[in-house]
Amino acid sequence: MRRISILGSTGSIGRSTLTVADAYPDRFEIVALAAGANVDAAFEQAQRWKPRLVSIASEKNADLLRTRLRQAGLSEIEVVHGNKGAVKVATLPEADFVVSAIVGVAGLEATYEAVKAGKTVGVANKECLVAAGELITAEARKQGKPLLPIDSEHNAVHQCLRGGRMNEVERVWLTASGGPFLNTPRSEFKNITVEQALNHPTWKMGKRITIDSATLMNKGFEVIEACRLFHIPPSRVDVLVHPQSTIHSMVEFIDGSILAQVSVTDMRLPILYALTYPERIQSDMRFDVGNLRHLDFCPPDMNKFPCLRLAYEAAKVGGAKTVALNAADEVAVAAFLEGAIRFDEIPGIIEETVAASNSRELESIAQVLDADRAARRYAQEKVQKSAEPRATSV
Amino acid sequence: MRRISILGSTGSIGRSTLTVADAYPDRFEIVALAAGANVDAAFEQAQRWKPRLVSIASEKNADLLRTRLRQAGLSEIEVVHGNKGAVKVATLPEADFVVSAIVGVAGLEATYEAVKAGKTVGVANKECLVAAGELITAEARKQGKPLLPIDSEHNAVHQCLRGGRMNEVERVWLTASGGPFLNTPRSEFKNITVEQALNHPTWKMGKRITIDSATLMNKGFEVIEACRLFHIPPSRVDVLVHPQSTIHSMVEFIDGSILAQVSVTDMRLPILYALTYPERIQSDMRFDVGNLRHLDFCPPDMNKFPCLRLAYEAAKVGGAKTVALNAADEVAVAAFLEGAIRFDEIPGIIEETVAASNSRELESIAQVLDADRAARRYAQEKVQKSAEPRATSV
Repeated sequence: MRRISILGSTGSIGRSTLTVADAYPDRFEIVALAAGANVDAAFEQAQRWKPRLVSIASEKNADLLRTRLRQAGLSEIEVVHGNKGAVKVATLPEADFVVSAIVGVAGLEATYEAVKAGKTVGVANKECLVAAGELITAEARKQGKPLLPIDSEHNAVHQCLRGGRMNEVERVWLTASGGPFLNTPRSEFKNITVEQALNHPTWKMGKRITIDSATLMNKGFEVIEACRLFHIPPSRVDVLVHPQSTIHSMVEFIDGSILAQVSVTDMRLPILYALTYPERIQSDMRFDVGNLRHLDFCPPDMNKFPCLRLAYEAAKVGGAKTVALNAADEVAVAAFLEGAIRFDEIPGIIEETVAASNSRELESIAQVLDADRAARRYAQEKVQKSAEPRATSV
Repeated sequence: MRRISILGSTGSIGRSTLTVADAYPDRFEIVALAAGANVDAAFEQAQRWKPRLVSIASEKNADLLRTRLRQAGLSEIEVVHGNKGAVKVATLPEADFVVSAIVGVAGLEATYEAVKAGKTVGVANKECLVAAGELITAEARKQGKPLLPIDSEHNAVHQCLRGGRMNEVERVWLTASGGPFLNTPRSEFKNITVEQALNHPTWKMGKRITIDSATLMNKGFEVIEACRLFHIPPSRVDVLVHPQSTIHSMVEFIDGSILAQVSVTDMRLPILYALTYPERIQSDMRFDVGNLRHLDFCPPDMNKFPCLRLAYEAAKVGGAKTVALNAADEVAVAAFLEGAIRFDEIPGIIEETVAASNSRELESIAQVLDADRAARRYAQEKVQKSAEPRATSV
């Protein structure tokens, strides 16, 4: 029986984790949940799973949730809130596995504390590895506990790595769908609408990650995540565009053998893998190999998609540069979604912000959060400067 | 330092093994060689590698080789001959790894004795697993030593299997190039010439295996080999046609994840893998992932290629049926190569021979060899009957 705490239980990965747990009631017990702002969803999850502990973002919502649970006869469920609440969920002594799926830097501290408390952590929160990956992976190594990637690419890499030892790895190949603008000429990038950018060809995801997929910044983040998770330099992580997203990633070994992982595009699969590792258990998520017909590949175009290049550059330096990369991207993507900047202005905002950030190593989550705030402020100023000329020209 | 005996040193796999050994002189020592009929090649190999022991097929050639080695100042190399000689090479106490690459049933006894002597055996000899696989794998399990497949498909499967446990395997997918007649209509099969059939699209191999690739019998043998090597029933081994032969095979796990192995089509790669397992070492055999463009797949057509169906049917019964399958195929292919029968007559000869064979289990290599001889006689008669009407009609 694996006893699971979920950080981000009402988000997409959190809900998928509960679906997986639901399918194997004799294997998984949900002991704690950290939800976002949605009290209704948090209440329903608490009622269904009866965890020992539920955390919710605001104090007001915590009071509301406490009342509703008491009315439902579930007053034994403890309700906490805020970052402290999430840390309590992450470090609950009864939990042995923590799913880190709070979106954004809000999940950093809780995830770090989970690792520090010796939990096995399944990582779905990109920021954990992009912004604070050096700290978190160092702590995981110290604890001797695995960090299990819950996203299709790194999960695929994790599986392929079982075919050899870490010192036998030549290269990691992350596949990329290429996003909706793979075949759009660069000259048309200035006219890309929010609606077009939100129309991802293979995965249904949140808005920011969908835009990040369209700019290939998402793949850039994944390059950084791969470097952190698997302790390899960015020069040994490559990206291959593969529109069908059938091969989720590959590992090339020093003898010339390459292992590739194939499966349906369903997040429940990497979640199940992480929750049961090192075992595998039966699922109904079957990829129809017999109906496989064509797979296509091409190299990524870094001129057309400068975000990928920016990510490689930041990855080489690490520290505050990757924090700035993530923070500036979040600000720029939000500005694009609000109509404040054009699609083709996203990379420039990020490039300037990363260039302006210092390149110091970060020694604590507090320092990461400081660097994050500074980069956000800087990027926000750049967004305003980009938006102004247009506002006056109207 | 791995001390290697090679059964079939002057054949294609034997020579590739020596090329691999040559590239890593500090890792591999050649301690014994069993050659075929080619005295010149055997002499050159003995001179180059200075093994303790060389075996050659005939007594006459052994005398010749002994004389030449003495003249070259190498009289310390012991020369033996025949099946007994090959067994001596296979069981030499100094050897810890035996490469089984004698073509045909001639390699059976030596391979079996190598396994029995507790050697780690790299298997390139198809007959070992098709005709005597049950005996050989049972003995390997008893000895607790791995049988390492030296052919691209099973070697690929072996690598993919590292991603899980044997009881977590749902299915093995063997890929097949489809051979030169993948897109030839069945109605034209009767006109296929020897030259056309010998023109394999992706691999350069011996004549029999090239014809077996054209009929898909080679893939049928590989299904049987997979069943024996990995202890799974034929119902869980599938074939997928993949003309580029880039993915060498795949393993589907019970959780829905599939691992696939990709590499250049170079036999030195599976040889190196087997010789260094469980380690991997650096090689220059690089597959250019960055230049990957298209991969195509389709299901095999068992009506057009009845040999594959015959192999599945024989695999279900095992024992003397798979011995008959192999023996009849060898006879039928030889008859086709000599112009005695047409390409489309090959499956009929095999089907009749397998049907006529009994389905008893075989308990010794001697029984395997008896069943093999009986099937060959039967198939030879069928060939003559097929050839007669045409001879009279000319």
